[in-house]
Amino acid sequence: MVEPALDALIDALRRLPGVGVKSAQRMAFHLLQHDRDGAHRLAGALTGAMQRMRHCSRCHTYTEAELCSTCSNPRRDARQLCVVETPADQAALERSGSFTGLYFVLLGRIRPLQGVGPEAIGADELLARAVDGVVEEVILATGFTAEGEVTAHALATALKARGLKVTRLARGVPAGSELEYVDLSTIAHAMGDRR
Amino acid sequence: MVEPALDALIDALRRLPGVGVKSAQRMAFHLLQHDRDGAHRLAGALTGAMQRMRHCSRCHTYTEAELCSTCSNPRRDARQLCVVETPADQAALERSGSFTGLYFVLLGRIRPLQGVGPEAIGADELLARAVDGVVEEVILATGFTAEGEVTAHALATALKARGLKVTRLARGVPAGSELEYVDLSTIAHAMGDRR
Repeated sequence: MVEPALDALIDALRRLPGVGVKSAQRMAFHLLQHDRDGAHRLAGALTGAMQRMRHCSRCHTYTEAELCSTCSNPRRDARQLCVVETPADQAALERSGSFTGLYFVLLGRIRPLQGVGPEAIGADELLARAVDGVVEEVILATGFTAEGEVTAHALATALKARGLKVTRLARGVPAGSELEYVDLSTIAHAMGDRR
Repeated sequence: MVEPALDALIDALRRLPGVGVKSAQRMAFHLLQHDRDGAHRLAGALTGAMQRMRHCSRCHTYTEAELCSTCSNPRRDARQLCVVETPADQAALERSGSFTGLYFVLLGRIRPLQGVGPEAIGADELLARAVDGVVEEVILATGFTAEGEVTAHALATALKARGLKVTRLARGVPAGSELEYVDLSTIAHAMGDRR
């Protein structure tokens, strides 16, 4: 088949993360055959989101306003600043209901091998914000991956040098898990941090 | 976060087959952060494909023209008509280079439990086409799933009643596989159809 409009759609769908050529074909045919309304809705949602979503001037997450709903909420505790890698991580923390402070969203992590350094993820803005005199504790909630740890380590060093209290999310055994199936490094950390 | 444009995008992405809420979030943030150009391209491709793709008047596949490129190719052998479930199946057969005849694309399969009968997948049009005096053999290439077999069986009965030669793709051991790992029903079929 040589159908430019279909090929263009499949190519565009393939650019989505986690979508290969087979999935893209399946999506394209599904939309054509069963969900043309959904296709138009998706096209509108894409255009709308790209036009309207921008970065919160304070925490860098995505928002339609100048300040995101968290940063503009006067009931959040401005003394605690939680640093996360992505808006998705921030959303997960919010859903957990365990944090009432404010956030700083890095929009990435330090990736030495790809040449992504601290400045590319907004470390300078984070440092400027952390020394505003209001922030008392910076909680580093970057992922427990190699790159997340590198990021946390670099930020912790810079923040401590400015006299700030810096903490990291606890490592340990996830809720609902049986010890038998937990990886050994996690068990070792949970044992070391026992309380 | 309460961000209508972002929520609308995540909801629209979730309607794609195989995309759950986590994947949709990941796609939305990926587009916002790394591929705004790709988002605009996808929006345009969606609109373009929905506007321009329609059914080939002869084989029912998707095309931008009145007739698809296969049906309008005079070098295809009109005496052989291959019946497939979807344009994706047709594309797979074309890539195999094993067939030079024409196609009829059902755009679905008989699903008795969902109330999808033969008329919903174009069986009437297929029968009308098969008795045009040119078609000599109808090759049923629906899937070897329960619903694909039901579809092939129903179509074979109707086509044979009209005096047509009806064949089915061979079942057997897939290329590149070791017998040890092939399921037993496939081995039994391959043994029965040995040659």
